[in-house]
Amino acid sequence: MVEVTRTLAEYIVGSRYSDIPEAVRTESIRTFVNWMGCVVSGSTDGAVERAMRALAPFAGPEQATVIGLGRRFDIGTTAFLNTLSNFIHSYNDTHLATVAHPTGAVASALLAMAEHKPMTGEDFLHALIIGIEIECRLANMIAAPPAECHFGLSTAGMTSVFGAAVAAGIILRLDEDQMVWALGNAVAQASGVRSTHGSMASHVIPAHGSRNGIVAAWLAREGFECSERSIEGPKGFAEVFAIRHHLPAAVDRLGEHYEFMANVYKPFPCGVVNHAPIDACLRLLREPGFDSGDVAQLDLRVHPLCVKLADRPSPRHRLEALVSVQHWAAASLVYGKANLDQGAAECVENPAVVALRGKVRIEADPGLASDAAVVSARMTDGRDLTVSVEHCIGSHERPMTDAELDDKFMAQAVLLLPAAISRELLATCRNVMESGDVGSIARQFFRAGEKRAIA
Amino acid sequence: MVEVTRTLAEYIVGSRYSDIPEAVRTESIRTFVNWMGCVVSGSTDGAVERAMRALAPFAGPEQATVIGLGRRFDIGTTAFLNTLSNFIHSYNDTHLATVAHPTGAVASALLAMAEHKPMTGEDFLHALIIGIEIECRLANMIAAPPAECHFGLSTAGMTSVFGAAVAAGIILRLDEDQMVWALGNAVAQASGVRSTHGSMASHVIPAHGSRNGIVAAWLAREGFECSERSIEGPKGFAEVFAIRHHLPAAVDRLGEHYEFMANVYKPFPCGVVNHAPIDACLRLLREPGFDSGDVAQLDLRVHPLCVKLADRPSPRHRLEALVSVQHWAAASLVYGKANLDQGAAECVENPAVVALRGKVRIEADPGLASDAAVVSARMTDGRDLTVSVEHCIGSHERPMTDAELDDKFMAQAVLLLPAAISRELLATCRNVMESGDVGSIARQFFRAGEKRAIA
Repeated sequence: MVEVTRTLAEYIVGSRYSDIPEAVRTESIRTFVNWMGCVVSGSTDGAVERAMRALAPFAGPEQATVIGLGRRFDIGTTAFLNTLSNFIHSYNDTHLATVAHPTGAVASALLAMAEHKPMTGEDFLHALIIGIEIECRLANMIAAPPAECHFGLSTAGMTSVFGAAVAAGIILRLDEDQMVWALGNAVAQASGVRSTHGSMASHVIPAHGSRNGIVAAWLAREGFECSERSIEGPKGFAEVFAIRHHLPAAVDRLGEHYEFMANVYKPFPCGVVNHAPIDACLRLLREPGFDSGDVAQLDLRVHPLCVKLADRPSPRHRLEALVSVQHWAAASLVYGKANLDQGAAECVENPAVVALRGKVRIEADPGLASDAAVVSARMTDGRDLTVSVEHCIGSHERPMTDAELDDKFMAQAVLLLPAAISRELLATCRNVMESGDVGSIARQFFRAGEKRAIA
Repeated sequence: MVEVTRTLAEYIVGSRYSDIPEAVRTESIRTFVNWMGCVVSGSTDGAVERAMRALAPFAGPEQATVIGLGRRFDIGTTAFLNTLSNFIHSYNDTHLATVAHPTGAVASALLAMAEHKPMTGEDFLHALIIGIEIECRLANMIAAPPAECHFGLSTAGMTSVFGAAVAAGIILRLDEDQMVWALGNAVAQASGVRSTHGSMASHVIPAHGSRNGIVAAWLAREGFECSERSIEGPKGFAEVFAIRHHLPAAVDRLGEHYEFMANVYKPFPCGVVNHAPIDACLRLLREPGFDSGDVAQLDLRVHPLCVKLADRPSPRHRLEALVSVQHWAAASLVYGKANLDQGAAECVENPAVVALRGKVRIEADPGLASDAAVVSARMTDGRDLTVSVEHCIGSHERPMTDAELDDKFMAQAVLLLPAAISRELLATCRNVMESGDVGSIARQFFRAGEKRAIA
């Protein structure tokens, strides 16, 4: 039997920033920049304000800043709300092998903690990397072949509590036993039913994970104990949440292989299964003589996961449209882009989009990779136009460049902040490794009391 | 397809205390008394203080009283800690068909809310009954035959968030749509991996459920939405958490049949699967000429669930002993009783108990009901003594009497309170139906600032 809980605890407690390869450290800055842009834009979504109103009456002391909402709450509540902002537009990041979105819960927990007790950029990035690393490894353990988990379970939900617990535990300098308990206290709170998909509630799952991960680590620090093998043991996390688990994925080559590097950033604000068909549609627009008004039928050949997760031919409202491949295909053809505006109600209800959505046929092709798609348009004049995408933008083979990430950041930040301030925030985030006090980023740019305003 | 989420929401919102049968109302008082006794004694366990120290630094305003610990925190934190106290000795209550322990999370949520905003006894009991009712029905839906859930999942954990959400939602007077969202926000937080069993962390699961149920209801009140069929729909709670679910169990005969009445109180402070063998051992003691020192071998024939959940021949510490049938059999024979003292370290390490524990053999007998057991002692002189229990104390057929419940309450309360005050608290709890302000019970008997002291 592979020992998972103890092995991970030993690795986490022994890990040092100085041992992490340069490429991983550099990537972690991109991870942070991407996280911040999504939080800033997500904070403008009304769902986050509703959640804030719900939690405010029993929130604790003003320890950390809710980005974009001009309020300060205790660490746990703030981590919850910033994670919610990070997720709400489905624009954050994806561990492709498992469709987990690992950064939201971890970075939100860390930034809230960094405001309460000063944290250097190196400490912050160290905990961020290791938290995400463990989260991705546990996701692989239950959800990447040869493992398989129930399709109704959200890997982002199930594993975010571990990422946050690990990161918080590193910052709290838990010893190895305490880290075993922190992982166990995380097991006791792991959740993630997917039926909430397409509604505000689906984003509660990782938000909840971020707060609960911190709670797991705080409990452990106070000596709140857990059994030794809560992840891999009988009736454990692996056994319960996976149909078939693969324990080695959690522990093989720790410190040598960084699964962290398998996390990529979303080029489009929607589920990653939609990205290849969107990319294909955007290329179809460049075909000579193509006009979206002349499409008689649009056939999408996609990876089977896309059908399973995103087949919603007639989304009833904006949140359902966000998880509808038919919507994203139609919207990207009508508007020539697939940004936040294409997820807005105006686009979802646009008659041209509605009409084109009705002409979309989708087909699962097990022969396609998850980052591939084939789009064929039968035009009203009888022509057939076909575009194949082998590796879509945002995939491992075609990761977003620094410039593309900056563009993504700026397009999001200006929803909340003036352009000059947005650029300043971007530069500050890109410089996080040199920061002596990461929490000051939250305080500096998102002043309490000034709703949606900044320094 | 059976409609579960909407049907439950409609029933909950439409339910009235005046429509609840007299027998159910009366039982709810016993439920509250039993809950309170367990919270009072559980609060003396060091695990609760550790959890309190962990949560205190980010707890919110002093809205409610942590029973026995002389501190006041926000509603959610208080509900978490009082639920932890209620569970920590495994002495609370059991919905036998599913091994759920439904009251802890619900009553803890309600009492905390009652302190914040005055609540009459009738409102309190109404929400308590309906919260537990829904919790038990959902437990049946995923865990009672013909349904079956993964054995590593704790029904108490998975369903407590629903009980608390429903009870909180009633008090917050959510409308039907909001109740649908509250149930969905509960789905998004449902958890319950059992591998933490036999450690402090296992009790995090329902504690967490209590707090999160309140959060689910508060989110819903602020318009934080969820999809319509989060419980019964594709990738929903039923599908994910059950191997085979049985949706009708959730909704059949709502308002006519009260599954609430299938909840019973624990006569012994340990998992209900141990109760029949304990009862049999206590009767064995009454056999003429029996002496626990003369036992050569002790054979327990038990329901298969007992073997699955409680087969721990050599518990390494107190918390493991609490979930070991071998320990409880040996301890009850050596001490002649099975109370909280038999779960204490002194008893767990008592050489006579350790020796007898080593002589216990257990055998699963699928022919036995869950409340039945057969205990046979092979004595050193060659005699065989056998006792059969058809329905153990605390079962549906032999529920605890009011006098037995009072005795149980008093034995627990005096761990914290003087006997006279314990009796007064008991009388006040028994009178809850007439109370105009249930929250005053917590304030009156558990004064803030006076640790482990009372008015």
